Amino acid sequence: MTADLATLRDALPDGALVTDRDVVAGYRQDWAKDPTAGWPLAVVRATCTADVQATLRWASEFLVPVVPRGAGSGLSGGATAVDGGLVLTTERMREIAVDPVSRVAVVQPGLLNAEVKRAVAEHGLFYPPDPSSFELCSIGGNAATNAGGLCCVKYGVTSDYVLGMQVVLADGTALRLGGPRLKDVAGLSLTKLFVGSEGLLGVITELTLRLVPAPPPASTLVASFASIDAAADAVLAITSRLRPSMLELMDRTSINAVEDYTKMGLDRTAEALLIARSDAPGATAAEEIAIIEQACRDHGVDEVFCTDDQDEGEAFAAARRAAFPALQQLGSLLLEDVGVALPRLPELVRGIEQIARKYTTTIAVVAHAGDGNTHPLVVFDPADADATSHAYEAFGAVMDLALDLGGTITGEHGVGRLKKDWLPAYLGEDVMALSRRIKDALDPAGILNPGAVL
Amino acid sequence: MTADLATLRDALPDGALVTDRDVVAGYRQDWAKDPTAGWPLAVVRATCTADVQATLRWASEFLVPVVPRGAGSGLSGGATAVDGGLVLTTERMREIAVDPVSRVAVVQPGLLNAEVKRAVAEHGLFYPPDPSSFELCSIGGNAATNAGGLCCVKYGVTSDYVLGMQVVLADGTALRLGGPRLKDVAGLSLTKLFVGSEGLLGVITELTLRLVPAPPPASTLVASFASIDAAADAVLAITSRLRPSMLELMDRTSINAVEDYTKMGLDRTAEALLIARSDAPGATAAEEIAIIEQACRDHGVDEVFCTDDQDEGEAFAAARRAAFPALQQLGSLLLEDVGVALPRLPELVRGIEQIARKYTTTIAVVAHAGDGNTHPLVVFDPADADATSHAYEAFGAVMDLALDLGGTITGEHGVGRLKKDWLPAYLGEDVMALSRRIKDALDPAGILNPGAVL
Ligand SMILES: Cc1cc2nc3c(=O)[nH]c(=O)nc-3n(C[C@H](O)[C@H](O)[C@H](O)COP(=O)(O)OP(=O)(O)OC[C@H]3O[C@@H](n4cnc5c(N)ncnc54)[C@H](O)[C@@H]3O)c2cc1C
Ligand SMILES: Cc1cc2nc3c(=O)[nH]c(=O)nc-3n(C[C@H](O)[C@H](O)[C@H](O)COP(=O)(O)OP(=O)(O)OC[C@H]3O[C@@H](n4cnc5c(N)ncnc54)[C@H](O)[C@@H]3O)c2cc1C
Repeated sequence: MTADLATLRDALPDGALVTDRDVVAGYRQDWAKDPTAGWPLAVVRATCTADVQATLRWASEFLVPVVPRGAGSGLSGGATAVDGGLVLTTERMREIAVDPVSRVAVVQPGLLNAEVKRAVAEHGLFYPPDPSSFELCSIGGNAATNAGGLCCVKYGVTSDYVLGMQVVLADGTALRLGGPRLKDVAGLSLTKLFVGSEGLLGVITELTLRLVPAPPPASTLVASFASIDAAADAVLAITSRLRPSMLELMDRTSINAVEDYTKMGLDRTAEALLIARSDAPGATAAEEIAIIEQACRDHGVDEVFCTDDQDEGEAFAAARRAAFPALQQLGSLLLEDVGVALPRLPELVRGIEQIARKYTTTIAVVAHAGDGNTHPLVVFDPADADATSHAYEAFGAVMDLALDLGGTITGEHGVGRLKKDWLPAYLGEDVMALSRRIKDALDPAGILNPGAVL
Repeated sequence: MTADLATLRDALPDGALVTDRDVVAGYRQDWAKDPTAGWPLAVVRATCTADVQATLRWASEFLVPVVPRGAGSGLSGGATAVDGGLVLTTERMREIAVDPVSRVAVVQPGLLNAEVKRAVAEHGLFYPPDPSSFELCSIGGNAATNAGGLCCVKYGVTSDYVLGMQVVLADGTALRLGGPRLKDVAGLSLTKLFVGSEGLLGVITELTLRLVPAPPPASTLVASFASIDAAADAVLAITSRLRPSMLELMDRTSINAVEDYTKMGLDRTAEALLIARSDAPGATAAEEIAIIEQACRDHGVDEVFCTDDQDEGEAFAAARRAAFPALQQLGSLLLEDVGVALPRLPELVRGIEQIARKYTTTIAVVAHAGDGNTHPLVVFDPADADATSHAYEAFGAVMDLALDLGGTITGEHGVGRLKKDWLPAYLGEDVMALSRRIKDALDPAGILNPGAVL
């Protein structure tokens, strides 16, 4: 049976099926720019759940691979297109309804994270998860990757805010799971299984999100250190006393790349910068900032700067968020996302320095330090074959180091295609086997995002 | 092949396999006292993961049903013994290790919830989930049922605190999932799938729990109303302004039963009592209590009482927690656990009153009102056949009402065996089918807790 695109076109609204090669080209890769990306048959721009169902029914019939796609900001090649498959994007599904009494929002997957935040803020509410890419990434992609971010150290990750969803299985069946209730234990925890499933188990077409009251304006502290090691020790001292609403780290390479990019006046001589925030109510914020400052001083901080000014504080958070695009100016990047239990953070940071030396490559480090999640970024010149192979070796060595420290190979970006080779070593054979059993139970023909994760 | 208990006895430590009928009798039922409970072949008191593995390997070989059991405080017959099966209890697995830097505790399943709370409090930390049964229920049972409690309105449910676990599958394979990291997205979200799985998918033998800093002492408000409807309206007014750390409701029947039981001086004439708490830091607690008080006044409260005294505040929380045992003094109970989206709480409460009238039976209501989770308790004389059949009809009618209001048949107690008949109507055929596919993938022979949930 050859796949007959015309029947799919007929089953979809006008313009939803795109085969124009120039347009399709824009949907072949996510932000990781996976060089192995294939050429899909077509891109489906779904407008509603029924479009997703029609697409998956057709794909099931003709055994055509389907790569679900949100905004394509993924960093692990999770949305890399597959030769002869479909890319199914949710970018046109953009509705939202906020219920301030239940404190939930019902959103379609294509809305950007920042748009969700803005819509709920109009009701005095707050949707916490805030990947650095919040202006670029879709809420559906966030759920599919269980996205983290800067405020997770205090507020938790996407999974903690997903109360329910509508999801379409590989065979086109649409399911409603969970709903606008804080508590619901009727049946298996299927909602949470789909969160973080990276497009392997179904396509999310609607989310019911838990919201919290808007926190008060945050106070911000910026501390510079003469060694990244000292900064990592300060992180432990801070987190053993309290949970700030942000606790980020940048090393010298990142600081300088961001300074080149933003010209905002960061201290180029610092070996490490910590950016911490407290959004505790009333006088508690000042108390928390004082505790954080003391912890920095106890670990030989060079300079500390505190501000209650929102714009100034936001400028530092924005500087941290600018690290990836800024570092991209220096060369090609291999993006890591390793995480360890907090007490091992200093060891991880020291080990990464050693790896960079060993492979004579540059590894910039930015980290959601407060939850032990680091982003070592291997920077290299793709035109230099030696440098490229060193970079790939260093990339693997960092994941091996994380595994040795009992850590994870991906704290928030997902496994996608780029970290797939390291997954078995992390999960072990039995957990891999169980994962495959679940994948097979839900998608027996394996049409959903083949080649990713498992 | 007949099951040969001797080989199982040999595979376990001395005394772990119990066949003494008097002892076994104590493990046939949970707190729901399911009258259909069977007689198991034996009870296994596992001391470690290896014991659980040995038991499940043996059970798989001889196709013997295994009912996992924590402390037997369940309210849905989830741990009801099965004829010719095994009851596998974790009560002897009681170790705990707290890491104050990572803010995690690694605990064995047999520890009681209250014991976990106490152990982490020694490090200035807090494990939030607090089922009313916290002195009676095991932490493993809490994870297996995704237990809720009183502070969930602010802090979320058990699932939000489970970062990792060790779990033994039906075939005896032991898996480690997740771990002491706030963020970990490597592979499918299997940890969360096992939370709330009611012993259907595996036996949890260790948990890694997320902890938070101990909150400041709470302020408590108690408000009495002349109608339960007014109290429910006040709940909405409160939750649309803030999330208290507790927001409980008791109706007149419960108040009087508790007063009979505790003689603590509750107002017997009140139609409803709200018990609210704030554990916000600094001056914010007083601000929150003032907002709550105003919301009560706006909805015609009769009397409001506020206290910062910890013992006094705790006495009111204890009164609420005493509702189940107190109501048991009045007759047999059918325990409901229906939940709705908050805006529908007043409708639910009114509907329950109508059902009680229609079936001329007593339905006491206590509720975790702040998250829309209510416990209507049908009270009846088991010696009176008419009363008994009315009670069962009312029990079903309350679940049907919850379904009509778009609510859930169980917010926190689980489906177990007693709510199983209502699950298909709630989940729908497709979600039931998906759940069965997952159950079959993990436990193809169906030896784990057969007859429960699905
Ligand atoms: C500058 C920058 C900073 C970043 N910072 C962070 C950060 O701090 N924290 C963080 O967690 N991530 C971060 N990311 C990564 C990325 O933004 C997140 O992974 C995000 O959640 C992806 O969302 P998306 O809509 O772009 O998804 P895509 O990239 O389109 O897809 C991601 C994965 O989800 C699947 N998917 C997408 N939508 C659906 C759906 N509706 N149903 C089923 N599967 C679906 C895809 O198949 C793919 O596997 C960053 C990325 C960039 C470029
Ligand atoms: C007075 C009273 C008040 C209560 N209040 C609340 C409340 O406020 N909120 C709430 O959520 N619940 C409440 N409950 C119900 C009950 O305490 C909870 O469901 C609790 O989580 C059960 O824990 P347990 O250890 O007693 O489990 P059990 O009753 O022994 O078992 C419960 C279920 O979990 C399974 N199970 C147990 N341990 C394991 C394991 N290690 N691995 C796999 N499966 C396992 C069993 O098979 C069964 O299906 C209350 C109960 C009572 C008696």
